[in-house]
Amino acid sequence: MKSIKVFAPATVANLSCGYDVLGLAVHAPGDEVIMHLNNSGQVTLDVLEGDEGRLPRNPEKNTVSAVVISYLRHLGVTQGVSIELYKLMPFGSGLGSSSASAVAGLVAINELMGQPLTREELLPFAMEGERLACGNAHADNVAPALLGGLVLVRSYHPLDVVRLPVPQGLSCALVYPHVEIPTREARQILKTHIPLRDAVTQWGNVAGLVAGFCTSDLGLISRSMQDVVIEPMRAMLIPCFDELRQLALEQQALGFGISGSGPSVFALCSSLAVAHKVTAALEAKLSEAGIGSTAYVSEINLQGPVVKNVQPVLAKA
Amino acid sequence: MKSIKVFAPATVANLSCGYDVLGLAVHAPGDEVIMHLNNSGQVTLDVLEGDEGRLPRNPEKNTVSAVVISYLRHLGVTQGVSIELYKLMPFGSGLGSSSASAVAGLVAINELMGQPLTREELLPFAMEGERLACGNAHADNVAPALLGGLVLVRSYHPLDVVRLPVPQGLSCALVYPHVEIPTREARQILKTHIPLRDAVTQWGNVAGLVAGFCTSDLGLISRSMQDVVIEPMRAMLIPCFDELRQLALEQQALGFGISGSGPSVFALCSSLAVAHKVTAALEAKLSEAGIGSTAYVSEINLQGPVVKNVQPVLAKA
Repeated sequence: MKSIKVFAPATVANLSCGYDVLGLAVHAPGDEVIMHLNNSGQVTLDVLEGDEGRLPRNPEKNTVSAVVISYLRHLGVTQGVSIELYKLMPFGSGLGSSSASAVAGLVAINELMGQPLTREELLPFAMEGERLACGNAHADNVAPALLGGLVLVRSYHPLDVVRLPVPQGLSCALVYPHVEIPTREARQILKTHIPLRDAVTQWGNVAGLVAGFCTSDLGLISRSMQDVVIEPMRAMLIPCFDELRQLALEQQALGFGISGSGPSVFALCSSLAVAHKVTAALEAKLSEAGIGSTAYVSEINLQGPVVKNVQPVLAKA
Repeated sequence: MKSIKVFAPATVANLSCGYDVLGLAVHAPGDEVIMHLNNSGQVTLDVLEGDEGRLPRNPEKNTVSAVVISYLRHLGVTQGVSIELYKLMPFGSGLGSSSASAVAGLVAINELMGQPLTREELLPFAMEGERLACGNAHADNVAPALLGGLVLVRSYHPLDVVRLPVPQGLSCALVYPHVEIPTREARQILKTHIPLRDAVTQWGNVAGLVAGFCTSDLGLISRSMQDVVIEPMRAMLIPCFDELRQLALEQQALGFGISGSGPSVFALCSSLAVAHKVTAALEAKLSEAGIGSTAYVSEINLQGPVVKNVQPVLAKA
């Protein structure tokens, strides 16, 4: 039977001022799925590594298999599928872990079925995976994980996703401090209403950030990376947040913010070299404060998921 | 003594979803200022035509002269100035009438003084003119009137104004229905707080609109021209608003909205030809409803104010 291996990347949602509408993909970390078609008629989750035993084993409940079940139901196909999920990234980290799993699963099954759907058409299934994982069908992680690059989710109803131009060399520094903030709770601390004045400030910055991406104006990107709406509510959940920002900017980061709902933080940088300096400074600071951390540095991932054919194996189920 | 003539253009603020941050300049209508330096030591407003006697004659109170006084005070110069203001556009119309006057006055005095300030440096003076005229120092009319083109006011504190790329041929249809809504009152009906959900929808659209301008994606511009925050509160002040929108879109307008705080409406169009069809349809509808109107059609004005030297004359004051 057919087998395939798919890597799907971690993603940074929000990008400071673009809550729920902007996201980007990085080259690492990410999740890997190995998938085999078989004759069992069932979708099974046969290997799950890298989660320290904390994610659901029930295929209806784990994102990676739930989205595959939903995809096959949509196609009206009964198909046995054996899934191996290798989590090569932390979860509950604000790096789009559930997205990476869902996207890897969806791209794998879609490849094995002969690509009946486009990448864009896989998006609603991945969004349902997000609803399962964190209670909200947001798209700002799954869209960049699926499509690669810098992605604008212009609208949810109808879904309208736009890939933005990426300035040459634009790089991302990521630091995951080893503390945990579930996305569901990070969303719950948000206010339901905000001052119109703050909303105007925010959409001015979102407009500036997008214009900066489109015209490769790094100064404009830098000036625009200010979040007056979400960050003031969430930053308190992240250790040493203000000091980390200060350090990142001192190392010439263009801008700094919370990755998704945290606790990971990110900085956009004009080059990989700057991004390396930023992560070094941030990790040193966290270490001083007695907090372990993991850092990742990469250019913006324009490619999205990586598909590899693997040797056919006997499916386990 | 030296004399000069300056035309400054009408402007469309907000551009649907970009309340207080986006604006554009058109080629017509606009205001014209003729200015003469003299030895009186006073700034005088000696001619004011086209306002039906409704604007202040006191030079401290009329925008065009007040900004000149403030500009000269800033330079620390005592200079006699005679101003003739020809209002070639309606005021209280949502077309940036006070901006056009202020910008024409400021560009004229700055030229006569030998351009000590750049156009960007004139902006704060023009914004103070807006405060005088409508109670709020907003920049989304004065910035495009001064700089031309499509302008993003990314931030007010500090002031950060960005000219955006303009798609080839992008045109603007303007229709001014002959009813009056003072800006001050149009702002007062706005709520001070808005749902976070609506704010997210709005900044998704602002991001899409800016990306559409930057990448000449007319479809994206069209899909993004939706205002869920301000328009629902203000549209009720404008006669036949929903029908006008419907008609504009039927004539292939990319998008339709309120110009500034109204009552004028505008449509962005892919060409002048489309814009002409749009204004014809809208004026016919208003006429059916017994409402007179004035229409203007132009491409986006990339040039901004137009400066003409005039024959020196004996100053009147």
